[in-house]
Amino acid sequence: MKKIYKAHILYTKEKNHFEVLENGYLAVDADGCVTGVAADLASLDGEDAEVTDFGNRLLIPAMNDLHVHAPQYRNQGIAMDLELLPWLQNYTFPEEKKYAETAYAEPMYRRFIHDLWRFGTMRSSVFATIHTESTRLLMNLFQEAGMGALVGKVGMNRNCPEGLSESVDDMVQGYEELIHSTLNAPLGSAASLCEKLSTLVTPIITPRFIPSCTSEMLRACGELAAKYQLPVQSHLSENKDEIAWVQELEPESRNYGDAYDRYGLFGQTPTVMAHCVWTDGEELELMKQRGVMVAHCPTSNINLASGIAPIRRFLTEGIPVGLGSDVSGGHDFSIFRMMVYAVQMSKLRYQRDKSSAFLSLAEAFWMATKSGGSFFGRVGSFEPGYEFDALVIDDSDLNHSDYSLLERLERYVYLGDDRQIVHRFCRGKEIAEPRI
Amino acid sequence: MKKIYKAHILYTKEKNHFEVLENGYLAVDADGCVTGVAADLASLDGEDAEVTDFGNRLLIPAMNDLHVHAPQYRNQGIAMDLELLPWLQNYTFPEEKKYAETAYAEPMYRRFIHDLWRFGTMRSSVFATIHTESTRLLMNLFQEAGMGALVGKVGMNRNCPEGLSESVDDMVQGYEELIHSTLNAPLGSAASLCEKLSTLVTPIITPRFIPSCTSEMLRACGELAAKYQLPVQSHLSENKDEIAWVQELEPESRNYGDAYDRYGLFGQTPTVMAHCVWTDGEELELMKQRGVMVAHCPTSNINLASGIAPIRRFLTEGIPVGLGSDVSGGHDFSIFRMMVYAVQMSKLRYQRDKSSAFLSLAEAFWMATKSGGSFFGRVGSFEPGYEFDALVIDDSDLNHSDYSLLERLERYVYLGDDRQIVHRFCRGKEIAEPRI
Repeated sequence: MKKIYKAHILYTKEKNHFEVLENGYLAVDADGCVTGVAADLASLDGEDAEVTDFGNRLLIPAMNDLHVHAPQYRNQGIAMDLELLPWLQNYTFPEEKKYAETAYAEPMYRRFIHDLWRFGTMRSSVFATIHTESTRLLMNLFQEAGMGALVGKVGMNRNCPEGLSESVDDMVQGYEELIHSTLNAPLGSAASLCEKLSTLVTPIITPRFIPSCTSEMLRACGELAAKYQLPVQSHLSENKDEIAWVQELEPESRNYGDAYDRYGLFGQTPTVMAHCVWTDGEELELMKQRGVMVAHCPTSNINLASGIAPIRRFLTEGIPVGLGSDVSGGHDFSIFRMMVYAVQMSKLRYQRDKSSAFLSLAEAFWMATKSGGSFFGRVGSFEPGYEFDALVIDDSDLNHSDYSLLERLERYVYLGDDRQIVHRFCRGKEIAEPRI
Repeated sequence: MKKIYKAHILYTKEKNHFEVLENGYLAVDADGCVTGVAADLASLDGEDAEVTDFGNRLLIPAMNDLHVHAPQYRNQGIAMDLELLPWLQNYTFPEEKKYAETAYAEPMYRRFIHDLWRFGTMRSSVFATIHTESTRLLMNLFQEAGMGALVGKVGMNRNCPEGLSESVDDMVQGYEELIHSTLNAPLGSAASLCEKLSTLVTPIITPRFIPSCTSEMLRACGELAAKYQLPVQSHLSENKDEIAWVQELEPESRNYGDAYDRYGLFGQTPTVMAHCVWTDGEELELMKQRGVMVAHCPTSNINLASGIAPIRRFLTEGIPVGLGSDVSGGHDFSIFRMMVYAVQMSKLRYQRDKSSAFLSLAEAFWMATKSGGSFFGRVGSFEPGYEFDALVIDDSDLNHSDYSLLERLERYVYLGDDRQIVHRFCRGKEIAEPRI
């Protein structure tokens, strides 16, 4: 049965332009897909549909988080005094070890999902840990919540502490168990999985990063991705020390990206790479050629003193970019806040080199919605055929003067928080508050 | 009558170190001043005092905002697409003109004070507009709220639109009226005002910035500051175009700071200068010599693509630094968020030049409290003799694991907002929610 929502509708079809429909109507079909947006009910053949009127509220696409670490939940907002490599050793790895126990994992993972929900993130690409059972639990909790996720059991077998290393065989076996137990589609037809994502929660192949994975581990990850046509996520060119280390570890590779590429982990299936702060030259060319997506994580990049990624350059080159919170390198779950930081960081680049413009709010919004959403299927826009992932924003406390609809949205992005998000939808269904 | 508060007490006596007292006691005398902090009641001679037990909550000094524009309240979170000079012309000046009408000003100023209160800012150094009546209203509203403020009627008479320019005589007359009507101390004894600040709300001499003020206006401002021994606030070296313009307008000055100094507006009385992004060389030496305080406004500096101020350098040189929200160049009232941005921006400087360390959270906290507070008297610490300006933080929703007290504070700074601030004190009195 068709559903119709009435509200002020704002979204980005194209990267530098907001579509704005005052008191507009949006129709959703029984599969949870948008069938149209219009100024009047008649144009949507909506006369006998159920109409929900959100009044003076804003209806916008939901947020997509392209890079977040679920088992770093406890460390959110602490340990902000270190750069990447010592931060991993001293804070991240010790915490991740605890996820060997699902009893430790469950309350943390519930809170993690609850925070994604609070801040309006309906799809996320998530790193779990090496532990198969905790990862399965995390996937089940996403299913229970009704929220979309690509969840990665993490591949690690070198340069990591005891208790956070797994043999290649165990990794492959654990992954295959997860694939069998969590995907509804028969595995023989897995070739079409990435396009259809017919289930909301899907595994994603997740070598932690080159320094944590031997060649055998990387090769096995690439083979899994190819065999099951699963997407891939990892970290790329975040920090200069890390890049030098990768070059040492993989001396025959032409660059960090190439080190993934040699193992089938760089765009052979849909791939998202977090950070890309120092991506340039041949690495950038390879990303472009392979359509590798960038998960831009601006708060993480400054918290860990990594630098400012060249996002304008990526957009100009046509490299796809989405936004990531990277909790707990990032301290904030809100992808709205990531928009603000993305614009701000681009202004600091601009201040040093005025030859390329800083990001507009529309571009940041587009990265958070339509561009980032594309990693999850037809997600992130209100064009016909897109899955209805949406937020209803009641900004009455912020809307105290004669603001335009675009100013209301800008104020919400800059000043708002979870309090103004009054309804959340994922694939057409309203998502209730997940149980902590 | 002495009052005693029990809680987990955290504050910064020195710039790189937190004092932490688990389940400590803090005593406040009848004048609202701290008499001591101790691990037990007996050491405070507090056996017969009224004890308020805040349980598992955190008790910290309240926030001080060293630079904020009250009449830009409406523009908070919009118009983030311009640099300083066009932003002033297109957004700021048109809005400030409206404050000719106190009927327009009152609801905005009430909301402005309410937001300072929400985010725990108990003292602020505020720009109003050129309008005497609206400025008086703003001062009265601060008095009514019980919150401390230095409020500046803004001096402007060149390069500003019609309706935002005032003759030097009118400026002086308006200022003197404000001084007479708002200070309780007899004006003959004004020499001691800045030290005593016996009233919570005091005028501050406020030439907008060099480009807005003729030599006559600057001279008159300097004379007012000297005559009434009032503090001074303005803008300094925010943006490279602005600096070049100042050099053109005041060709005989050796630098932007010197242009103020020639008129007695650079440390002759207590002076705070916002931004100082590009302060260096002789200007920096002059600030140091004169003890001019920096109001560091990191969000504003990135929103307006101004750059990153050299805060580590200022601290090393012994130049006093506090934090400012600079609403609406800054989009956020929270001085806690300013701490986060101050640390983050210093990490970006560090990433480019690792010869000097980035700011620690303790240093940022110290700037927000004891260092910034010093502009308002003995404010910002819990040492004996300091006025009791404090916040009680109920972080139970953030405190879900085995966090230390310092981690709890760090998490509150990074993740919290107004919801966790459950009590606010200014000069010993609990401050109730101001009426909007």
